[in-house]
Amino acid sequence: MPETSTPFLLAGDRHTLEHGTALTPRFDAHGLVTAIAVDAATGEVLMVAHMNAEALAKTITSREGWFYSRSRKALWRKGETSGNTMSVREIRVDCDQDAVLLKVEVAGDGAACHTGHRSCFYRSVPTGNDARNVVLAFDQALAQSDKSAAGD
Amino acid sequence: MPETSTPFLLAGDRHTLEHGTALTPRFDAHGLVTAIAVDAATGEVLMVAHMNAEALAKTITSREGWFYSRSRKALWRKGETSGNTMSVREIRVDCDQDAVLLKVEVAGDGAACHTGHRSCFYRSVPTGNDARNVVLAFDQALAQSDKSAAGD
Repeated sequence: MPETSTPFLLAGDRHTLEHGTALTPRFDAHGLVTAIAVDAATGEVLMVAHMNAEALAKTITSREGWFYSRSRKALWRKGETSGNTMSVREIRVDCDQDAVLLKVEVAGDGAACHTGHRSCFYRSVPTGNDARNVVLAFDQALAQSDKSAAGD
Repeated sequence: MPETSTPFLLAGDRHTLEHGTALTPRFDAHGLVTAIAVDAATGEVLMVAHMNAEALAKTITSREGWFYSRSRKALWRKGETSGNTMSVREIRVDCDQDAVLLKVEVAGDGAACHTGHRSCFYRSVPTGNDARNVVLAFDQALAQSDKSAAGD
């Protein structure tokens, strides 16, 4: 999607992009920016998704989380079917304006992940000496995450 | 980069991908996954970047943040020139394994952003009624961020 078809201003030079006061999102070749949703109260990272210009504009104006599904090639309102909609308390944009951070409250049972976990990042990956081979088992982290999720 | 050239296992079916105990990263068409760095102590989102298989493998084994620059088309060790290297305390992977979350400590002056800010997300975007037109000014948030950054 060419940037000219979006409701946003075109990006200026690098200084303006990084230090300017206008939102000039840098959509990638597929017309997308990265969107990270964090819990507005705790800061916990809940989900990473993508937004096209329409999803970003809808999120900004409605203060509800709208995204773009790369697999389904469609706009989606988070929680449309699950009830776990996202109320957006604040939006931040990063230095080169190709990623946005949403501080959200998740409605319903509070699960931001379609698997039922609060966060999509429910598994820990072994590192350093614990990552001895390519099969990176993380059973323990998964079990712990499920236990704490059950207490939500 | 085809997945077969990586040191990681190939992704299985959706259930295994989401509930399995093996790291089977789903690199995109450009051979990349999204990487989010958060402050290990506070959880603050510091930076979003990308990793190819080599950057991910190096980060896992060395516990230092390695990324892949899409603009420079090169592997880079975060902080190589600035001194703001990232010590990785934990790595998490998301449900569909196309994004990783790094809990890090930033060395040097603690600025994760090349602009000198602690976090790349130093600007707030007006939302709802405040976002009346396509010029989304965020002077105030920028000024506040610079003031707090100066106190770091």
